[in-house]
Amino acid sequence: MQKYGLLFVLSAPSGAGKTSIFRELLARQPGLRESISFTTRAMRAGERDGIDYHFVSRDQFDRMVAQGAFAEWAEVHGNCYGTAKSTLLQAAEEGRDVLLDIDVQGAAQLRASGLEGVFIFILPPGMAELRQRLSGRNTDSAEVIERRMTNAVSEIRTAACFDYIVVNDDLERAIATVQAIVIAEKVRRNRVIDHLPAEFGLKSSS
Amino acid sequence: MQKYGLLFVLSAPSGAGKTSIFRELLARQPGLRESISFTTRAMRAGERDGIDYHFVSRDQFDRMVAQGAFAEWAEVHGNCYGTAKSTLLQAAEEGRDVLLDIDVQGAAQLRASGLEGVFIFILPPGMAELRQRLSGRNTDSAEVIERRMTNAVSEIRTAACFDYIVVNDDLERAIATVQAIVIAEKVRRNRVIDHLPAEFGLKSSS
Repeated sequence: MQKYGLLFVLSAPSGAGKTSIFRELLARQPGLRESISFTTRAMRAGERDGIDYHFVSRDQFDRMVAQGAFAEWAEVHGNCYGTAKSTLLQAAEEGRDVLLDIDVQGAAQLRASGLEGVFIFILPPGMAELRQRLSGRNTDSAEVIERRMTNAVSEIRTAACFDYIVVNDDLERAIATVQAIVIAEKVRRNRVIDHLPAEFGLKSSS
Repeated sequence: MQKYGLLFVLSAPSGAGKTSIFRELLARQPGLRESISFTTRAMRAGERDGIDYHFVSRDQFDRMVAQGAFAEWAEVHGNCYGTAKSTLLQAAEEGRDVLLDIDVQGAAQLRASGLEGVFIFILPPGMAELRQRLSGRNTDSAEVIERRMTNAVSEIRTAACFDYIVVNDDLERAIATVQAIVIAEKVRRNRVIDHLPAEFGLKSSS
């Protein structure tokens, strides 16, 4: 029997440190990969179609949306980005584990798509620390920071829909905790039992 | 609100390497402790009552059994050993995580007791490896080994009742996997959500 790959979804309010955790986890956890998204934005120098993104026209993207081809998609600064259901299903069937770095809206779409996934929410230790991190970037105006803080309040409320909640009060510990979730989910009974030696007599079907 | 401790139950057929994993995990995972059992066997030199075991008479033990005081108990070579429900409940209430190293029968009793626990089953990579490990100990007669092999077959069947199944084909990896389970279970949504800062607005009650 085929061993299925798992889908891990990492989400957080902006400033919680999600992307640092995402990058480190891909580097540390063997077999864990990001998925290749579809986008309508122009290809940049050095990017390759089908490797960095699947580059498609706005017409093609809209058609995929209409067909319900996306597990989640969004428009950002006039460009569209989306994760195709077929990409995730193919990875699962080929036994590859996928890690997605998506915002709270994308996670909600993914949950609604009915695809099986392990949903992990990253939280800052508190609102004061979140403000400090957002200010510390020195890239955003006071106005942008205020908007992110307001958004964070409603984004944090959605943590109640996730399977795991990891407070990022220490980046190294947060990375290790998310990695522990990945390792543990792979040995849950139902994901192991059909792949054991037949002599154990434990397969649910054969 | 009080943060509850978790109960982790490690079980396996004899020869799967459970006790090595148990010892290493207690050494590596901060805050994880074994629980102190009750026993009717005589105290040995160097042992301390209430630290190594709670030493009780056979009468006292039988009374506790009759009162349903044990989450699991067994008689081994004429001596009785048992884990009191009160010991486990007190640890949980005090926020201490407990790791139990018990055989398959003990795990079944514990499950039936209704106490909440995370049940982890350790498997050998195959029956040939199990036989090799049991023979390699050089402590047991061929007859004892055969009996253990026969028992192992029925014990392994109970893996289907556990939450996690860890195949011990590499001791270091098996230890790391069980440790990952402990870390991950502690950040499951329902175990985190009531202990977050009130400003997140996520507490289920307050």
